[in-house]
Amino acid sequence: MNDSPITVDYALAMAEGVGPLGGLRDEELDAERPAFERAAKHVAAQTSDGTLGFWNLPADTEQLRQVRDVRLALPERLHDVLVLGIGGSSLGGRAIYQALSGPLELVGIGKRTHPRLHFPDNADPWMLAALLDVLTPAATVVLVVSKSGGTIETAAQLLVLKHWLQSALPESEVQKRIVAITDPKQGSLREEAVAQGWPTLSVPSNVGGRFSLLSPVGLLPALLAGADIDDLLQGAHAMAQRCTVTELRNNPAGVLAAVHVLQHRLRGRAINVMMPYCDQLRPFAAWYVQLWAESLGKRVNRAGEVVEQGPTPIAAVGATDQHAQMQLFMEGPRDKVVTFVRVQTPSRDLVIPESKGAAAYLGGTTLHALLEAEREGTTEALAMDGRPSLTVSLPRLDAWHLGALFFLYEAATAFAGELYGINAFDQPGVELGKRLAYGLLGREGFERTAQEIRTREAKRPKRYTVR
Amino acid sequence: MNDSPITVDYALAMAEGVGPLGGLRDEELDAERPAFERAAKHVAAQTSDGTLGFWNLPADTEQLRQVRDVRLALPERLHDVLVLGIGGSSLGGRAIYQALSGPLELVGIGKRTHPRLHFPDNADPWMLAALLDVLTPAATVVLVVSKSGGTIETAAQLLVLKHWLQSALPESEVQKRIVAITDPKQGSLREEAVAQGWPTLSVPSNVGGRFSLLSPVGLLPALLAGADIDDLLQGAHAMAQRCTVTELRNNPAGVLAAVHVLQHRLRGRAINVMMPYCDQLRPFAAWYVQLWAESLGKRVNRAGEVVEQGPTPIAAVGATDQHAQMQLFMEGPRDKVVTFVRVQTPSRDLVIPESKGAAAYLGGTTLHALLEAEREGTTEALAMDGRPSLTVSLPRLDAWHLGALFFLYEAATAFAGELYGINAFDQPGVELGKRLAYGLLGREGFERTAQEIRTREAKRPKRYTVR
Repeated sequence: MNDSPITVDYALAMAEGVGPLGGLRDEELDAERPAFERAAKHVAAQTSDGTLGFWNLPADTEQLRQVRDVRLALPERLHDVLVLGIGGSSLGGRAIYQALSGPLELVGIGKRTHPRLHFPDNADPWMLAALLDVLTPAATVVLVVSKSGGTIETAAQLLVLKHWLQSALPESEVQKRIVAITDPKQGSLREEAVAQGWPTLSVPSNVGGRFSLLSPVGLLPALLAGADIDDLLQGAHAMAQRCTVTELRNNPAGVLAAVHVLQHRLRGRAINVMMPYCDQLRPFAAWYVQLWAESLGKRVNRAGEVVEQGPTPIAAVGATDQHAQMQLFMEGPRDKVVTFVRVQTPSRDLVIPESKGAAAYLGGTTLHALLEAEREGTTEALAMDGRPSLTVSLPRLDAWHLGALFFLYEAATAFAGELYGINAFDQPGVELGKRLAYGLLGREGFERTAQEIRTREAKRPKRYTVR
Repeated sequence: MNDSPITVDYALAMAEGVGPLGGLRDEELDAERPAFERAAKHVAAQTSDGTLGFWNLPADTEQLRQVRDVRLALPERLHDVLVLGIGGSSLGGRAIYQALSGPLELVGIGKRTHPRLHFPDNADPWMLAALLDVLTPAATVVLVVSKSGGTIETAAQLLVLKHWLQSALPESEVQKRIVAITDPKQGSLREEAVAQGWPTLSVPSNVGGRFSLLSPVGLLPALLAGADIDDLLQGAHAMAQRCTVTELRNNPAGVLAAVHVLQHRLRGRAINVMMPYCDQLRPFAAWYVQLWAESLGKRVNRAGEVVEQGPTPIAAVGATDQHAQMQLFMEGPRDKVVTFVRVQTPSRDLVIPESKGAAAYLGGTTLHALLEAEREGTTEALAMDGRPSLTVSLPRLDAWHLGALFFLYEAATAFAGELYGINAFDQPGVELGKRLAYGLLGREGFERTAQEIRTREAKRPKRYTVR
């Protein structure tokens, strides 16, 4: 439900707002219009021919029914949900959870009307081991999220959790407590889920992990946490429609993509800071970092040339990072574009009491008004020094606007990939590290990589260690 | 208590380890030896003459007594501790809390033997408002941490909390529930604490916020959380001694500083990634980001020349970020040095059960062994492509080694400031944004800045907003 949409204000990334060294001239942005039109049409064509799946997720209301059906197949009374997944299989769900569930859910205080979600998105056993000591198997559900099913951390955690459930419950009850969210047809997780009779949900084959949060990957966790998943998709859908416009300046995702790419290409600004003034959006910034980094950081371009390019995204949060990273953003190299995300009406507020003394001027204002003044002050301070920024404004942080915000950045990423001339939808660079780890873990077929590492290590001079 | 110290392995940042494009040649590092010797001597001299206070904190055991005395003055039975502070007044305490308290403390599950700590380190009212709904004033203590006492977010939160306590408790009880940690002599927080009769602890005047976690700023939260603060300081003290060595290659902080500065100056690597393979060290990485960014990102150098320089630090965590940022680090621009932090013996572990099928090879190994294999695989994958990294190894994550790790990076930051030729101990760049915010909030004396902003905003063309 919504009347007022998200706005993207780019005046302070333009020469008129911050001067010609910090900002783009109108003609520079306009020169990118034909390229953007091609980009938008290419993304639309790839969507139409089925190459790209993410664009159609918001309109796919069939998945809402499937997600609700799976929820009904799970035990009614749940205390805890463990989401086993990493990267794109976790960051989206985590971002939805912190944005839309209450703050006390996160710190585990107070009464709950919905189960608690946990995202042990690492191979680190620290949190998972502790949780398994105290959670009640009968009141716990495990969501296993892996597109391929082969993700090593998730596969290992699933083995641990299966054993944990099986040690406490009969097989018929275990079956109701593991949900597989994976490829619709293939992969070892799909095979196992079918063999074991677990409820399953599909991530469409043409949707990559980091573009999957508007699929069951994000929707089932969101539903379990009590979020309005209809509104989430509807907000995303409304944004998807805004982002189909081929005229650059009328397309919010197009403007985000073009401003970032041109600030990089023409002004050398290779670092993109995502700085919501909103604690609830801290994990949104982490989700964005993965989306932007993994999509745009590429060795080869579409012509097959080695380019080794890609902007470096950074997560920050205001006002907190005014006391941490802002000194660097204000005075350091002019290599950054900062995006401020503003939430106009907070979900909660606190009035600052009247007082005497140094802080008297704060009396009667609210913490949110203070936060807003800080955001505005920081934006202007950067601008006064000719340092560019963008401001994305949400009237409020509800499911509708959150869905829109997610989609806005998915579309911007797809467009930025086109403007950079790279494939935004693969991640070839993470394969080598994986294969080396397989070798070290003794996986069949990887014996040579293990040997290779041991040889390299043995040859390495020992004098470079400070003890 | 400790026998085996932290090691710093820099073989993969050297030409012998990763080749001459990615690594430094021995002669390049050795050429920096005289500069480092001067740097170490300058830091030592500034420590001796009292300009720099952080170096002597680990040996200052008197503060342990003061911190313990203040603890005794507080109510014995405490459920919750609110740490009001932002930036350097919060990041260190938070880092200690997550590293040394149990994981269930963070998620609020299970029985506790110590009070729960909360770090609402933002002006955002979201979490604070919710906490005040449910916390019990009689069982809550508020630590107000502000070096100057003038930090606007903290001042505002203190007003809210004072009112919250006063609404529920008589003044004599309120007095026992607010602790001020601030400058020993001056500032509005010091004045108010004295006037109100609150227990107070001092941050030495010559210790800046981001270098203050081994003062009461970190020690009181750590003590309340049940950490061994003697060991924390002793570990830091042992590291401080190792870092006084003036021979570059024998000084672990010197090597960290010189490798980063030279990789920046000679190879153009301006981005420094901190990537512990350890969930407990996620907030340590955030602490490092502030330390590195705010200390080294400066407009002018010591000669007063405008340089606008400074490396950009990035927080990551392994193995999680292999599925998020690693694609960029592996294939993107060769502008990064990655530091891996390794914890050799985990505080907890989980054995992966035997299984048939694709993940059978994992059976019998542990999650920590998997994490280690991933760290090693990722390190080697970067190295095989000539991309440099450093590895900092901790035998285990206890108070002693954590204290040592913190000090290692404080010393490295001080040395890096010397090698960059800038003042690592100020933060002039954050003043303008603050003053503009004061103006917007109607603080006396800042009326003109408010007007100036409104004029700028009014002049700004409206056509740069996508609606």
